[in-house]
Amino acid sequence: MYRTKTCGELRLENVNETVTLAGWVQRVRKMGGMSFVDLRDRYGITQLAFNQEVDAALCEQANHLGREYVIQVTGKVAERYSKNANMPTGDIEIIVEKLQVLNQSLVPPFTIEDETDGGDDLRMKYRFLDLRRNCVRSNLELRHKMTIEVRRYLDGKGFLEVETPVLIKSTPEGARDFVVPSRMNPGQFYALPQSPQTFKQLLMVSGFDRYFQIVKCFRDEDLRADRQPEFTQIDCEMSFVEQEDVLNLFEGMAKHLFKTIRGMEIKEAFPRMTWADAMKYYGSDKPDIRFGMKFVELMDILKGYGFGVFDNAAYIGGICAKGAAPYTRKQLDQLTEYVKRPQIGAKGMVYARVEADGTVKSSVDKFYTQDVLQKMKEAFAAEPGDLILILSGDDANKTRKQLCELRLEMGNQLGLRNKDEFACLWVVDFPLFEWSEEDQRFYAMHHPFTSPKPEDIPLLDTDPGAVRANAYDMVINGVEVGGGSIRIHDSQLQHKMFELLGFTPEKAESQFGFLMNAFKYGAPPHGGLAYGLDRWVSLFAGLDSIRDCIAFPKNNAGRDVMIDAPDELDQAQLDELHLQVNLKK
Amino acid sequence: MYRTKTCGELRLENVNETVTLAGWVQRVRKMGGMSFVDLRDRYGITQLAFNQEVDAALCEQANHLGREYVIQVTGKVAERYSKNANMPTGDIEIIVEKLQVLNQSLVPPFTIEDETDGGDDLRMKYRFLDLRRNCVRSNLELRHKMTIEVRRYLDGKGFLEVETPVLIKSTPEGARDFVVPSRMNPGQFYALPQSPQTFKQLLMVSGFDRYFQIVKCFRDEDLRADRQPEFTQIDCEMSFVEQEDVLNLFEGMAKHLFKTIRGMEIKEAFPRMTWADAMKYYGSDKPDIRFGMKFVELMDILKGYGFGVFDNAAYIGGICAKGAAPYTRKQLDQLTEYVKRPQIGAKGMVYARVEADGTVKSSVDKFYTQDVLQKMKEAFAAEPGDLILILSGDDANKTRKQLCELRLEMGNQLGLRNKDEFACLWVVDFPLFEWSEEDQRFYAMHHPFTSPKPEDIPLLDTDPGAVRANAYDMVINGVEVGGGSIRIHDSQLQHKMFELLGFTPEKAESQFGFLMNAFKYGAPPHGGLAYGLDRWVSLFAGLDSIRDCIAFPKNNAGRDVMIDAPDELDQAQLDELHLQVNLKK
Repeated sequence: MYRTKTCGELRLENVNETVTLAGWVQRVRKMGGMSFVDLRDRYGITQLAFNQEVDAALCEQANHLGREYVIQVTGKVAERYSKNANMPTGDIEIIVEKLQVLNQSLVPPFTIEDETDGGDDLRMKYRFLDLRRNCVRSNLELRHKMTIEVRRYLDGKGFLEVETPVLIKSTPEGARDFVVPSRMNPGQFYALPQSPQTFKQLLMVSGFDRYFQIVKCFRDEDLRADRQPEFTQIDCEMSFVEQEDVLNLFEGMAKHLFKTIRGMEIKEAFPRMTWADAMKYYGSDKPDIRFGMKFVELMDILKGYGFGVFDNAAYIGGICAKGAAPYTRKQLDQLTEYVKRPQIGAKGMVYARVEADGTVKSSVDKFYTQDVLQKMKEAFAAEPGDLILILSGDDANKTRKQLCELRLEMGNQLGLRNKDEFACLWVVDFPLFEWSEEDQRFYAMHHPFTSPKPEDIPLLDTDPGAVRANAYDMVINGVEVGGGSIRIHDSQLQHKMFELLGFTPEKAESQFGFLMNAFKYGAPPHGGLAYGLDRWVSLFAGLDSIRDCIAFPKNNAGRDVMIDAPDELDQAQLDELHLQVNLKK
Repeated sequence: MYRTKTCGELRLENVNETVTLAGWVQRVRKMGGMSFVDLRDRYGITQLAFNQEVDAALCEQANHLGREYVIQVTGKVAERYSKNANMPTGDIEIIVEKLQVLNQSLVPPFTIEDETDGGDDLRMKYRFLDLRRNCVRSNLELRHKMTIEVRRYLDGKGFLEVETPVLIKSTPEGARDFVVPSRMNPGQFYALPQSPQTFKQLLMVSGFDRYFQIVKCFRDEDLRADRQPEFTQIDCEMSFVEQEDVLNLFEGMAKHLFKTIRGMEIKEAFPRMTWADAMKYYGSDKPDIRFGMKFVELMDILKGYGFGVFDNAAYIGGICAKGAAPYTRKQLDQLTEYVKRPQIGAKGMVYARVEADGTVKSSVDKFYTQDVLQKMKEAFAAEPGDLILILSGDDANKTRKQLCELRLEMGNQLGLRNKDEFACLWVVDFPLFEWSEEDQRFYAMHHPFTSPKPEDIPLLDTDPGAVRANAYDMVINGVEVGGGSIRIHDSQLQHKMFELLGFTPEKAESQFGFLMNAFKYGAPPHGGLAYGLDRWVSLFAGLDSIRDCIAFPKNNAGRDVMIDAPDELDQAQLDELHLQVNLKK
């Protein structure tokens, strides 16, 4: 061992002990005849002291240490003259007697401090240095702690962690698969799993009863800010359960994490909201309910007064921002610009202030009498000082989504989205299908194995779009942290689902035949849920992106810029795989 | 919930409780006016009783249940007349009042019993049914328990579990990579990791200090019995350590596993053996030391007496099988046949018995006087009743390997390789390089990042083949369960290694440039180890192959016969990836 103690553990009670430490040079300071080195390791920082008068050569050696040099020192623990109350080791320092440079370092391309001067691209290229920063490493320490607690909880509930294969079979339904050519089976390919969905269902058929796995999943998607081609799921499945059992168990896990990781005891049950209500009142299937501002529909109140925009609208709705009446014209113009950005796409915004005397002053006063505006005020239960913001459009769902963005932005502006406050929610009763206008067909909203609600099964034949699923999402602060469903365990019903999803019997057989076959040998009722580990960690770490809770993330082009992957292959490798790259196509 | 209790938990104290159970029908028996159903779930088997006289319709329903039907029953717990002491639930049965079939089952293609009538191929095709067998599921339960204990131990020692990427970069050195075409980077490929080696070293450069990960690794090899294209490692790395520190910590982990999983307290330190001694005395770098039979070299004793086979041999060596003198001529012939099999390749075998009077009777008596044979006897410290078996050949290492096989076979025949007995061993001081006659170049024996022993560094220039590495393997019962090394942390020395391994500077840069670059920014001394989880589990489960401790293994052609993967891709998928399959080549 190169050390007897770490840089984080020495205290006043260690004074006069002779210790050996090893770590990285954070900084070197000369003060009069003394030189001080801050020595850093994962556990903390310890101050090293060198006295010019006592050992000039040693002190000189210290003065020549560069940032990020790796050194080993032996010396005596001493009480500091000027203590640093901000550091756990701030009461002591090491009077160094021996110093050895274990490795030198070039000057790092950015400072290894919480507040660094390195831009994103540079930090990603030198991720091994970025990870030295406490703020980055602490995200990964949090991640480690969370997986320990997840396993503790699930193991305690009788779940078995079972590893499912990574080299599986491509199922083009849904997102794109990453594929892996097989050398031993020329012309054939494995696929990397988008989730272990079919395998966990097979494990239920096998009687494993309670399964989980913290597992890498893969999706070849065009990447957005919060997506990575490889991501980690806490994947779970249970047998002989109904929806209520799954919700209870995984709400319990969420509460366990809040308690053990964030020190928060949540006693109440998580509120539940139907998907229909979430869309109606928040314009989103993952509403952030840290704050109110529920949508109020205004079709009945505002239509028919000659204001063409509203008169022709398929939807008119608004939110009431408490106390925001003092918003200036400039602020309101900026909000209008915000909703008109192409990513949101609203045509415009109407606003109305409730004045101190209760009267309403709006941007469309010429069309509406105070009488009508008062009715609107009542619909919002708005009070003096409140600001009402209204959007309209010819597509109700699109307009709701725009209003959702406006609501979130107002939440931000009014400071209603505090990262240390958490609002958990179950969204339930998702539709089973989603209609694609483009493809003129139904798609499974979750996946083709999701069970319809038993009472809605007759609708499969008459009105598939109206069928609700036994599917549920857990949403925290507007982030979908997990979701799942009760599965179909009846092969007849599963066949019907494939039919409705436009699978030919041959395609269903070739892609999911093994699962259909398994269902013929005694499949138990089962259901489950998958949590997104990356999202949980970034939520608890207060991060804006999942990227900073992943040790070696990829960029938006799917590249690891540190190792420069992906890369071209040797021709010999391609030949062995019977492949030819064809860039012309 | 479809049940109030599991099939494994009811006891006498539950008598008279009304319970609901759900599970699979193991078997149905009619005895007079009663019918009995054994109901099975993961937790056990509970007997259900139906009385013809009490409820004829219900009893009739029970009689029609097929094997592996999934049912739900409600009834009262009753004390059994004839108890079954072999089952934890053997004191009770359920007097069923209500029976519901949750799902039917076709007749399974093999019996779901520990002793099944299903062959390997059938069981693999219907793995979801094979996994219902207690003996298979219990291996996976053991696997779960072991990973829980591994994490408990490492977390307790301050290790952080960090996920490293699965989509990385191909490095053709060593075994073949599986590769993944990148759609977003046309013509380029990711590779799946053969191990997270470079990433764990980067994490040490990042100051993570103690890292571990239970992680899937991938190798595109032609498969042997004990290999899978995807396998799981317990991958670990530590900073500021020397070899001794790594050995101590991971010996501690092994002892922790023996204690918590097998209930065995190992107090003594694991013995250590140099690689040179392992080869000399056991002809293997992973000797099974549950038993003795160390090799004795006989060149000095047996050469020069006119027996051409020995006189021309580069190596003559033997083992002494205690008490095996009574081996018949037939048994000895079979042993000779055994070592002459092509997989072993010996030319023949010489044997000698030590008679009751101490004289030695050998198969080559015409060449040797009793005097010489007595000297040989002394070399083995052989006693009356012992059997001496001798091999020779013109390639010392090849002959040692043959003798190793003979020794293991004798260990089997004499019952010296008990699966419930464990002999742990560290093999240390591996050579740094292995010379390939075929390629006329050195290969890294472990991998190119392994550190030479400091005292052997001068030999790098003069006699690379003689350089010993700070590398070590843990061997249990002849199985290499793990191995590792102290790494090179100096970029100069690493460059020299690449040079000796025949890398051009460009190739070293393109493949490992990111690691070399990282080493310039303050790499700490570090080292680590990786345990093979599959091997540990199969060792503790007493399995002959790792396959049965993997939920969904692949066959020797790398196929998953259950899901029928790998498979061909749609042309559209290939087009998107800019690939063409070229089976002509």
